[in-house]
Amino acid sequence: MDWERVVRRLREGLRPDQVETDVVGRLVYGYDATWAEGMPDVVVHAESTADVAHVLRIANELRIPVVPRGGGTGLAGGAVPQGGICLNLVRMNRILALDPADGVAVVQPGVITRALQQAAEAHGLFYPPDPASLEMCTIGGNVATNAGGPRCLKYGVTRDYVLGLEVVLPGGEVLRLGGRVMKDVSGYDLKQLFIGSEGTLGVITEITLRLLPRPPARGALAIAFERLEAACEATVALLSSGILPLMVEFMDQITMRAVESFHPSGLPIHAEALLLLAADGEPAAVEANLQRMTSLMQSHGGQLLRTALDTGDALHTEELWEIRRHVSPALARLAPHKLSEDITVPRSRIPAMARRIREISQETGIPIALYGHIGDGNLHPTLLCDRRNPEEMARVARAAAAIFEAALALGGVLSGEHGIGTLKLDFVPHAFPPAILEKFWALKALFDPHGIMNPGKKLPMPRNWT
Amino acid sequence: MDWERVVRRLREGLRPDQVETDVVGRLVYGYDATWAEGMPDVVVHAESTADVAHVLRIANELRIPVVPRGGGTGLAGGAVPQGGICLNLVRMNRILALDPADGVAVVQPGVITRALQQAAEAHGLFYPPDPASLEMCTIGGNVATNAGGPRCLKYGVTRDYVLGLEVVLPGGEVLRLGGRVMKDVSGYDLKQLFIGSEGTLGVITEITLRLLPRPPARGALAIAFERLEAACEATVALLSSGILPLMVEFMDQITMRAVESFHPSGLPIHAEALLLLAADGEPAAVEANLQRMTSLMQSHGGQLLRTALDTGDALHTEELWEIRRHVSPALARLAPHKLSEDITVPRSRIPAMARRIREISQETGIPIALYGHIGDGNLHPTLLCDRRNPEEMARVARAAAAIFEAALALGGVLSGEHGIGTLKLDFVPHAFPPAILEKFWALKALFDPHGIMNPGKKLPMPRNWT
Repeated sequence: MDWERVVRRLREGLRPDQVETDVVGRLVYGYDATWAEGMPDVVVHAESTADVAHVLRIANELRIPVVPRGGGTGLAGGAVPQGGICLNLVRMNRILALDPADGVAVVQPGVITRALQQAAEAHGLFYPPDPASLEMCTIGGNVATNAGGPRCLKYGVTRDYVLGLEVVLPGGEVLRLGGRVMKDVSGYDLKQLFIGSEGTLGVITEITLRLLPRPPARGALAIAFERLEAACEATVALLSSGILPLMVEFMDQITMRAVESFHPSGLPIHAEALLLLAADGEPAAVEANLQRMTSLMQSHGGQLLRTALDTGDALHTEELWEIRRHVSPALARLAPHKLSEDITVPRSRIPAMARRIREISQETGIPIALYGHIGDGNLHPTLLCDRRNPEEMARVARAAAAIFEAALALGGVLSGEHGIGTLKLDFVPHAFPPAILEKFWALKALFDPHGIMNPGKKLPMPRNWT
Repeated sequence: MDWERVVRRLREGLRPDQVETDVVGRLVYGYDATWAEGMPDVVVHAESTADVAHVLRIANELRIPVVPRGGGTGLAGGAVPQGGICLNLVRMNRILALDPADGVAVVQPGVITRALQQAAEAHGLFYPPDPASLEMCTIGGNVATNAGGPRCLKYGVTRDYVLGLEVVLPGGEVLRLGGRVMKDVSGYDLKQLFIGSEGTLGVITEITLRLLPRPPARGALAIAFERLEAACEATVALLSSGILPLMVEFMDQITMRAVESFHPSGLPIHAEALLLLAADGEPAAVEANLQRMTSLMQSHGGQLLRTALDTGDALHTEELWEIRRHVSPALARLAPHKLSEDITVPRSRIPAMARRIREISQETGIPIALYGHIGDGNLHPTLLCDRRNPEEMARVARAAAAIFEAALALGGVLSGEHGIGTLKLDFVPHAFPPAILEKFWALKALFDPHGIMNPGKKLPMPRNWT
């Protein structure tokens, strides 16, 4: 590839500072939140839909890979370039509209998730999806991975809030899909294909999101269980008892001990499991739900540690969320490296999955911390390891493969909210039959006939599964 | 077409009573709930996925149109055959699983919506979508049209509950898409394409649906407004006030008078508009919401007519739902025929849309009753007419076209929950640019290369828009 010529073409429609070619400038776009590494040949900082169309026209003509990028917080390697153009979208960070009457926000893809939530709250509104990286990740990335988070148990995932998308296709064509209406059955719902497509079909340049009224009150409980199985069983019982909690978050003993050592708060480190439960809504309903959840947990052997209720501006639950927020940094201190998986199983299979993960840890000798959104069946088994030890890394690979195999055998899936990226690519042919993989490729070809959009991500090459 | 040979081939894999060829037997499959009429050449009563695959293998080989059919309650002509095979799915009416632990139901497509709701309620669970025809329509049809209903304001549409689908493609290939997991980002989400596709891509043979806990209490209000605009404005104010009602249903004076004459219950027939509002959840929250909704409505000039609260088995709101349920039969008595449209606009445009519909009625001299799910911006302007009068029907066509034009101009869509079918086909090229229509056809070709699935529905032929 004649990169000088490519850069000259790119610069024709952009300001000089929008096209970055020096090594240092490019280096910082070669990572995400995993240990995947790469390097783009050029970085373009798009500032408008027209900029994106300009890049995709040139890239499509010259068959150059384009890797769209938001906050770089991905957990699957999806935004890590292996050459080509890194299309950075964080400068497109305007909230174009926040309309209480229509109940929508219209945003550019580079808006930080938390910024949208704050803007909505200022109008008494609420944007529920809350991926753990919400202080840094972008809405564009959230849509591209169909991001989740703890509150998805009650409120659903990013997909459930996307009413409209503007997307740019390879070649530069701009499609506007959906809009400010709450219900629409007037065509095939093309926007659904782009949600969760991990940048492999086109580039999302504008998003219309549904907002809800902000619930006036929120409360939370922390409950400890002597036995991990009892915590799993209590969760399944709770979710078939008539209550829809805001969230049911789980952490096992390894995770809890790491959190307690990171930031001591008196967690019962001899217990095998901790559940954080929350409810939101009208104050009276929240109080009633907290009481019912407490009794139910206690009847399954749970021990109430703390309870807290927010009303108005008094945020007494903060201390409980902090326990959850410390999980990732706390686990990071236990070993030089960690590999965080994202399997999801049907709710009733949570106890079986938790048991199997403990067996896998014993079989491979790899410590596995287990935590996650247990109410959704979405668990993050986290393999603690040292990448400098090849023998250990071989066992990590075996453990990860065994976890995927167990999840699929229990009717589960490889990823609930992180995506496939490059890290889980090899397992995709085990998760889908060839007939479905063929359709994936046919869809890909429909929007991206030359395969320039984020190649090598999400979809395994046909030679790897036929 | 040599129909004797086709019928012989179809009968090879089926029992004699599954293949119907006599005129009387076929006649009853030539209608839906509109005035569209047609006639299939043969009716096949499928009883299994294998039966469906058998039919689609033969139909694909011989290029015979296949029209899948559920309850025949559609409001857009989508299930009305113009020759070919009517594939009747109502015998596939088993609830295969209802699993409180996983929070799902697995059903065949011919299950009646109300039957699923009752089965869920027996387990303390709740399936929210509630199209008006729920006593007769099938879940398969609900998925194929992405059906809505009053409760969708709070709980979303059918799409929001579909976790998994089994579909049979032309040629007989069976794909299983999704399953019992609440979160899945491991491939392109193919099932989304089939939801709302009106039988044009393949046949849905099994559906896995998410169920919610059944809310313990429900309450409702009836509020009258002297002026229609005030009712519209009160709705917009309510939905940006921090409350998420279960539903906000609207009827105008024509509709209210029709209901009162059909079944007198003391409705204030001199008022221009009636709103039915409902809330559900914990009893204390429902009471608080009803009070807040009442004050807010009154502050916009609304007059409280009735209020009712259900708790446990005491269903005091029944009387209020009855008012809503009488709308369709009551309007049917006002004129020999009626044409019920289904436009949706952004919430803030509801007053403008209502004004425009009144103007259109005056301009064309066609009485138009207006009612619908005003909280979603989804209105059903109902044109009252006599099909035997060609001059009047020309004015009906003009009025319908003007309604679609106004909805599109206000950022709305042709259909919120009924679908396109044949009745709105001519307006689709006004709603989508050619670039999007081309993608619709490319998607269609991907799943149905010979165009046998429900031809002439949903997608206008390219010659009509290029």
